[in-house]
Amino acid sequence: MDIESATQARECGVSGGWWGCLKALPEKSKSKFLNFTSNIKKKALGDPRRVIHSLKVGSAITLVSLLYLILPLYEIFGLHAIWAIFTVVFVFEFTVGAVLSKFTNRGFATLLAGALGVEGVNLANCFGQKGKPFVLGTLLFVLAAGSTFSRFFPRIKARYDYGVVIFILTSSLVLVSGQRVEGIFDFACQRLYDILIGGAICIVISLFVCPVWAGQDLHNLIASNIEKLANFLQGFECAYFECSVCKDNPDKSVLEGYKSVLNSKASEELLANFAWWEPGHGRFRLFHPWTHYVKIGALARQCSYKFETLDRYLTPEIHVSLEFKGKVQEPCKKLCWEASQALKALSSSIRTMTEPCDAKLHLENSKNAIQNLKIALETTSLEDEELIAIMPVFTVASILIETTKCVEKIHDSVSELSHLAHFRSVESKVSVSTEKPHLLHRGTIKPVGESYGAGHVQSTVQDMDRLEICVRPNSDADG
Amino acid sequence: MDIESATQARECGVSGGWWGCLKALPEKSKSKFLNFTSNIKKKALGDPRRVIHSLKVGSAITLVSLLYLILPLYEIFGLHAIWAIFTVVFVFEFTVGAVLSKFTNRGFATLLAGALGVEGVNLANCFGQKGKPFVLGTLLFVLAAGSTFSRFFPRIKARYDYGVVIFILTSSLVLVSGQRVEGIFDFACQRLYDILIGGAICIVISLFVCPVWAGQDLHNLIASNIEKLANFLQGFECAYFECSVCKDNPDKSVLEGYKSVLNSKASEELLANFAWWEPGHGRFRLFHPWTHYVKIGALARQCSYKFETLDRYLTPEIHVSLEFKGKVQEPCKKLCWEASQALKALSSSIRTMTEPCDAKLHLENSKNAIQNLKIALETTSLEDEELIAIMPVFTVASILIETTKCVEKIHDSVSELSHLAHFRSVESKVSVSTEKPHLLHRGTIKPVGESYGAGHVQSTVQDMDRLEICVRPNSDADG
Repeated sequence: MDIESATQARECGVSGGWWGCLKALPEKSKSKFLNFTSNIKKKALGDPRRVIHSLKVGSAITLVSLLYLILPLYEIFGLHAIWAIFTVVFVFEFTVGAVLSKFTNRGFATLLAGALGVEGVNLANCFGQKGKPFVLGTLLFVLAAGSTFSRFFPRIKARYDYGVVIFILTSSLVLVSGQRVEGIFDFACQRLYDILIGGAICIVISLFVCPVWAGQDLHNLIASNIEKLANFLQGFECAYFECSVCKDNPDKSVLEGYKSVLNSKASEELLANFAWWEPGHGRFRLFHPWTHYVKIGALARQCSYKFETLDRYLTPEIHVSLEFKGKVQEPCKKLCWEASQALKALSSSIRTMTEPCDAKLHLENSKNAIQNLKIALETTSLEDEELIAIMPVFTVASILIETTKCVEKIHDSVSELSHLAHFRSVESKVSVSTEKPHLLHRGTIKPVGESYGAGHVQSTVQDMDRLEICVRPNSDADG
Repeated sequence: MDIESATQARECGVSGGWWGCLKALPEKSKSKFLNFTSNIKKKALGDPRRVIHSLKVGSAITLVSLLYLILPLYEIFGLHAIWAIFTVVFVFEFTVGAVLSKFTNRGFATLLAGALGVEGVNLANCFGQKGKPFVLGTLLFVLAAGSTFSRFFPRIKARYDYGVVIFILTSSLVLVSGQRVEGIFDFACQRLYDILIGGAICIVISLFVCPVWAGQDLHNLIASNIEKLANFLQGFECAYFECSVCKDNPDKSVLEGYKSVLNSKASEELLANFAWWEPGHGRFRLFHPWTHYVKIGALARQCSYKFETLDRYLTPEIHVSLEFKGKVQEPCKKLCWEASQALKALSSSIRTMTEPCDAKLHLENSKNAIQNLKIALETTSLEDEELIAIMPVFTVASILIETTKCVEKIHDSVSELSHLAHFRSVESKVSVSTEKPHLLHRGTIKPVGESYGAGHVQSTVQDMDRLEICVRPNSDADG
């Protein structure tokens, strides 16, 4: 922003001093306003749940305020009803899990701190009017310092941080009020009632008005991350090797989609934490294995790190021997294709909550492609090739092989998830490529390019024939 | 924890039912307690600032409570003094920047919401006793929904999220109180005073009692991340190539240190955001270029992604041609060594806030090593080598070359930082290796190993001689 205003000031200076600047002001303000409204529109249309959430928060706060604005309820709850507004403002989060987590934290922390606080005040009363403030102060110090220290433990930080803050707050309030307010027990109870009223409104609205589930979001995030990886591999195949399927170069957004996977750890862990608090919803039971999604997410990230290295080899500045590239092109393309199809199948398996049969078969095909690549390398001679020009091709091939291993790990983890979460069993529509690794051709050198071309067509034909082979989840897990 | 208790139950069942379990209880409780205390001790000794912070929070809360516990102050501030406790509990964070950010957010949000709320109440008064609750409710809804929506904008979320929450809270409280409490203006003012009292105590304690600066932490984090990268490269050199310098295999912690860099984005951005609020401290001026550290952090992460791919090649399961490895070993080792030294120099340049002269020279040396590697590849023939066995070596060499390019980018960014933040100028203690790339030897094939050995010794001798060549920062930035 500093740079922006400096540029603006310079521009004004060039085009005729402050007067020019002043004349341009209405035009600039208009364009800024239009920019601002278009930004809001984009944000709202990008995820309409954001607008709905804002309306929900507005409604919850207005509703809780009615307790205060309308007479009879005010008579019952008194001035303290204002605490219910506090609860709504701090507890109403975007997802149901977050609301439940914060409400439970707030409720239990208040209960515990209230009980401890009342006991503390009783204890302090034993020390007479002079000793009381000293005892209360010491208790305050010990509770606040101890609780603050507990926030440094990652486990507590992740799940109970808000609870600890509320614990410090409530215990301080109760202990301090103990010096003045008579009927300290009533004070503690009132605070609890207010939290219950505010919390109940939050929970009812967040649960029953267009609920946003952290679990569903996590589920979708992991599936879409895996799909982004698949898209990159497919795009890479087209961009690095000339691909007959894709005439044009792939879209930049397809090739860069995986970049969001690189830094998805924090949001995945947050969603998993919130999902833990949610009741069963939609296709998810109460004890859905949410932590397992975090494991799959970590493996997807491993894969995305490899793509970050691969991505570098798409720049034209790296000199490559086209002749050698041609020799390994077909098995590499097959490898890319099958690995990307395996990832797509895994993503779709998560999305539809069905067993990942197809992925297993695509993985088998990609392993065959690795064998073919190895045979191609064994049967290739490098008489006139410059080693420096074949190095990038080797690197790409090597990373692609490593990628397949990574995809296999993702597959194993998704299989485990499908077992834990009882995914539906389906019949596969893909067949293992019947094309054997060309071990028999060793020495005679059959051009690998031809055989992949055939394999590719054959695979497509088989897709259409829908040969139905199914792999049971248990055998997946063993494999 | 579920798995843990299930295992425990199973163990009990095996060793003699519930009675056995009950007998083992004291022993288990003791070991759990010891584990718990050792955990606390580890946490406290790991960073003693955590203990100090906890004590500071305890003191601040006790201090603010004195306002309430001691009579004369209570007479002045009245029951509302309890709000000051709120401020301390919510505002007192670990770093000075976080405290200032939260205090400023809280203060300005309260001021703005208070003013808007009072105006809102005045407006509602115009609509008579019947229309008033309706107008107040509508205002509440619009303010709450609009503010909540603004929290979805990343810029607002990053810097003003807490302010928005407090804005919603205060405006709701003022609007709702407008229905009942007479003297609404006094109410809003009182809330502001309480925040000022609580905030002042937080700021004074966090600024003057062992202050923890987010800026200093960010500075150290970036320097230590770059050092971790350097350590990995050095460890990789030892682990992948047999290295004469290191007799034993490098420590696992050295090789895995870079893994924390992979996911450091969130903490770097958070620290940079907090550092933005901090006044000048220690060696940092008021407008220190904190955002530039985030850029360096992103480049370091780029490098760590490459290491994640390299790391895979340390596993013994990958079959490698030792003969071919021997041929490229020396330039690769030199490359690793010089790149790691460049990273170490960059880390030390950030730590000591001096210009990165040494790093530039190590980078020059590593570029020479790349040239030597290319020559080694050009002059090597591969008559009896299996291509599949040389593939991993090629991949490692190729990624090492890419790593050097990445290190160069980090160097450029650190140079820019040194320019922006006026790092001290120093004289370099390293020389560019005078050993020329072996272009003249082409065709005659001089074993690259020998020449590197010589170069290595020579470089060490020159280190001792301390030939003083300095590269000016401006030329760094240009280069």
